[in-house]
Amino acid sequence: MNYSKIPLAQTVVTLCKTHNIKHIVISPGSRNAPLTIGFTHDDFFKCYSIVDERCAAFFAMGIAQQTQEPTVVVCTSGSALLNYFPAVSEAYYSRIPLVVISADRPPHLVDIGDGQTIKQKNVYGKHVFHNANLKLDISEAQNSNENDNASFFNKLEKSLGKISSQQNTVQSKNETKIHKALHAAVINSGPVHINVPFDEPLYERVNALTISPKPFRLPNLEEDIDKVLIEDCRKKWANAKRKLVLVGVLQPNSIEQRWLDELAKDDSVIILTETTSNLHHNDIFPGIDKLISAFDEEDFIKFQPEILVTFGGLIVSKRIKRFLRNYKPVSHWHVDLHHANDTFFALKKHIQLKPNTFLELLLSISKTTKSDYKPYWLKTRARRRLMHDNYLKSIPFSDFTVFNSVLKSVPENSQLQVGNSSAIRYTQLFQLSDTITVFCNRGTSGIDGCTSTAIGAATVTDKRVTFITGDLSFLYDSNALWNNYIPNSFRIIVINNNGGGIFRILPGHKNTENFDKFFETKHQLDASHLSKMFGFEYVAAHNQDDLKNALKSFYSISDQPKLLEVFTPSALNDSILLDYFQFIK
Amino acid sequence: MNYSKIPLAQTVVTLCKTHNIKHIVISPGSRNAPLTIGFTHDDFFKCYSIVDERCAAFFAMGIAQQTQEPTVVVCTSGSALLNYFPAVSEAYYSRIPLVVISADRPPHLVDIGDGQTIKQKNVYGKHVFHNANLKLDISEAQNSNENDNASFFNKLEKSLGKISSQQNTVQSKNETKIHKALHAAVINSGPVHINVPFDEPLYERVNALTISPKPFRLPNLEEDIDKVLIEDCRKKWANAKRKLVLVGVLQPNSIEQRWLDELAKDDSVIILTETTSNLHHNDIFPGIDKLISAFDEEDFIKFQPEILVTFGGLIVSKRIKRFLRNYKPVSHWHVDLHHANDTFFALKKHIQLKPNTFLELLLSISKTTKSDYKPYWLKTRARRRLMHDNYLKSIPFSDFTVFNSVLKSVPENSQLQVGNSSAIRYTQLFQLSDTITVFCNRGTSGIDGCTSTAIGAATVTDKRVTFITGDLSFLYDSNALWNNYIPNSFRIIVINNNGGGIFRILPGHKNTENFDKFFETKHQLDASHLSKMFGFEYVAAHNQDDLKNALKSFYSISDQPKLLEVFTPSALNDSILLDYFQFIK
Repeated sequence: MNYSKIPLAQTVVTLCKTHNIKHIVISPGSRNAPLTIGFTHDDFFKCYSIVDERCAAFFAMGIAQQTQEPTVVVCTSGSALLNYFPAVSEAYYSRIPLVVISADRPPHLVDIGDGQTIKQKNVYGKHVFHNANLKLDISEAQNSNENDNASFFNKLEKSLGKISSQQNTVQSKNETKIHKALHAAVINSGPVHINVPFDEPLYERVNALTISPKPFRLPNLEEDIDKVLIEDCRKKWANAKRKLVLVGVLQPNSIEQRWLDELAKDDSVIILTETTSNLHHNDIFPGIDKLISAFDEEDFIKFQPEILVTFGGLIVSKRIKRFLRNYKPVSHWHVDLHHANDTFFALKKHIQLKPNTFLELLLSISKTTKSDYKPYWLKTRARRRLMHDNYLKSIPFSDFTVFNSVLKSVPENSQLQVGNSSAIRYTQLFQLSDTITVFCNRGTSGIDGCTSTAIGAATVTDKRVTFITGDLSFLYDSNALWNNYIPNSFRIIVINNNGGGIFRILPGHKNTENFDKFFETKHQLDASHLSKMFGFEYVAAHNQDDLKNALKSFYSISDQPKLLEVFTPSALNDSILLDYFQFIK
Repeated sequence: MNYSKIPLAQTVVTLCKTHNIKHIVISPGSRNAPLTIGFTHDDFFKCYSIVDERCAAFFAMGIAQQTQEPTVVVCTSGSALLNYFPAVSEAYYSRIPLVVISADRPPHLVDIGDGQTIKQKNVYGKHVFHNANLKLDISEAQNSNENDNASFFNKLEKSLGKISSQQNTVQSKNETKIHKALHAAVINSGPVHINVPFDEPLYERVNALTISPKPFRLPNLEEDIDKVLIEDCRKKWANAKRKLVLVGVLQPNSIEQRWLDELAKDDSVIILTETTSNLHHNDIFPGIDKLISAFDEEDFIKFQPEILVTFGGLIVSKRIKRFLRNYKPVSHWHVDLHHANDTFFALKKHIQLKPNTFLELLLSISKTTKSDYKPYWLKTRARRRLMHDNYLKSIPFSDFTVFNSVLKSVPENSQLQVGNSSAIRYTQLFQLSDTITVFCNRGTSGIDGCTSTAIGAATVTDKRVTFITGDLSFLYDSNALWNNYIPNSFRIIVINNNGGGIFRILPGHKNTENFDKFFETKHQLDASHLSKMFGFEYVAAHNQDDLKNALKSFYSISDQPKLLEVFTPSALNDSILLDYFQFIK
């Protein structure tokens, strides 16, 4: 009795399998019981049970972020699926294939006063790439023990001999809709929504499938090379003396090292990378803010590129965005299979190719261009690095020194997940080991699901995972820890400055009661109780010595995951950071 | 310097004041700083700071549930406002005037790769009664330090001398939109969304208002009496021998006692109430499930009404819904100013009046009708009550006995907030004191914000508040406790049966690993750590004696709020409940 008796539930589960979707994150409920029965009784699927749907969806997103494959979340009807929405929007802007499957009441029971019922169809609006609103299985409604309108019409139609052909049509249309949605998740690398109405009874089972889905074809994912476009790129590339390559969020190994080497040979090319780009080369410029924060007008003019080529997802650095909007490149090209943002109001080309494909086409026959663009800025880079180290020696224990120590401690060949928003901004100022891969939710840059995403990622990666987060972000997503799948090797580091330290950096009035309460939202909470509650080994650090000691054994093998909480002085942190940008000039 | 320099922020704040909106729940952020500055520097408003937007919105909803007045939630741009959605949908179906004010980026910065940016316009779809998408203040854009498209166009237009008249038009249109939205919240008694784009700089302030809003007229809220309809009701009412009055969620004192007395004189009328109806009279039938669960076919036929009159919001009892769908009344009338659900597929009249108005029109000249309808069922009610008491004596410590003890302990003249979904279902089986008012989120019946709603309600009511909840619901909304406004008199009682006990009542396969994990979602968590973390006095009870002792001092005055956690045997609870419905026959 491993299958729901409801053919539509069988169809959804079977087609997920056909599309090779493995990870299914289920939140408890009754309306989704037919799906839960189907998914959890088939060993093909790895099923997870997570109660809080907000966490469940971010957890699933963490899985999809790592596997780069569609990952399913399943919930019951009503407000349950609205709790998925923050993760859906993050997945939309981060281009992560999250497949939402929501169980729904039959349409005649929507908006007539039944419980746990909302207008579920298309509820995510334009934040998904496809809405599949499946139709109620007629054979289901036949079984219905509710003497309501639907059954009445079914009886009527049955008596007219219509039911069998209609049933086939509905089944066939539903199959097509499911295929389209699952294709869309892959083709767009983004979220889709499948809404599945079920009538009661919901818990009946059968021994064998009663459906036989039609065969289907997988979508064509081949790249389409536009030769004219490439030729134009090559020409412009060869003629430009100042070419800036800016890289946002990228999966590790998205760009082959040989293309980085090739670009590095060219003095007219600067590669500016964010930590989330997962790119490493001796000649690139990581730490954008470190480089450009101290720029004066003359620097800006000197740095202004003729051609800007961007790869990857959203950019963390506000300063580079402001710079490139004020000192626009003549031509901005974005290289991405799916989508191009006109972030700097200068977008000229959307090159719909994978980065490696484009770089091969561009560089295989291009020559390097003579220029003093890179050599000049390499000197600045060297100076900044020196001043950075000097600054570190001159300042007291604070967010800045803590990020330095903590980031140095992250084990080689491990994965680092970083929270929003201070945490990732600080992280960008430091240089990480090349062997560490970095991830952060930068689609919507919310603090609402960073911990859940990190835990989701940790369940499917071979690497050990460290998650660094601020206190507000950690507390916001505390239900992330209500999760039975956290590896013992998982590590959380909470930098606790007793509130939203980022607001102290911003230009508002500080140190008033009003500011403390409504902007910084000061609190006296810590992570010790949550650690105990959810089975984390807890260690606290209040100064540099504490921190040094704590880090010594923090990554050693343990039979629990661990959480290190570092308390920093909120009144100092902001001025230390702001002074830094002056100091490194 | 108590005003944001941005005119649009001044307008939003000023108009909220004009509409007499007092309670403003703010979540921290930068984009909403102009609003935060405005609201928090005016003593007219009572402002609250709550970080987790999901909790913030349910908290605001709790305030609006009590005050019956529009209550504002304010958040920053991006996924923040998506976290409001569960509360928005609850407010929509519970008809609670929640006013969402979301700060947004200027339109030219949406979908171009800026952080914390989503498609905010109309994001709640059909789950709000009005969408006000405000336009960027042109005077704002002039101040913009971002050299982008908007400023470019502004400069152009300014040079053409267009700016001043355009500014007036935009200001005037925005005012109208805000009025419309705030009207809609009152007229529909439901949620509305006001989306407010702001350009940088966001933190600048001025000493005095720079706007002068036009006067406006409050909407007409008078009832419109349809005499023909009323005459028809009177006739049908007089002729019917079996009239069922069914009452769902209602504010306390929504129906005057004299009309209940009047109805009670009539033997052809049965008043069936849910606990959430807050109605009390010796002759009414509270505890619907207690009455009808043991009905046989003959009972159903005898109980079937000719006329069904419903008041109030959604109905908890699934059994009464099934009964009335199977044994439809000839005519169903719903009495509600706003909306009528065709819950039983028999709706004939939507009477758009307040309950008291309708009852006065109906009863002031009607005579009572001879019938044995009520006398017969009063006998059944008496028998059920006797058997109920007998059953209580016969069963061991369990959810059932705990609800009995706990509900008896709730102080006179206090307020009871009940969680979804087991908690409210159990509560309905017991008779509460007439002096206790009862509330529960039955719009979408979610477990996602019950605690937050209860806390919101507790901050504005004069009564002391007790909140009774199950463990899953409590854990789901644990961030509700991250709140600086909880009165010391607030009490939480968590009935902890280590999972979703309600799933054991449903017809699925029980006691398998699969069931434990994906349906009941068993856990070993308790509320002790959260209590310590958030400053609640904690007491646990594992048996009847523990519970008796704990309740003795539980409601005594304290300098902290308190939480009582009662652990019940999950393996017994379901059979005790199911047997109950047989026993009381």
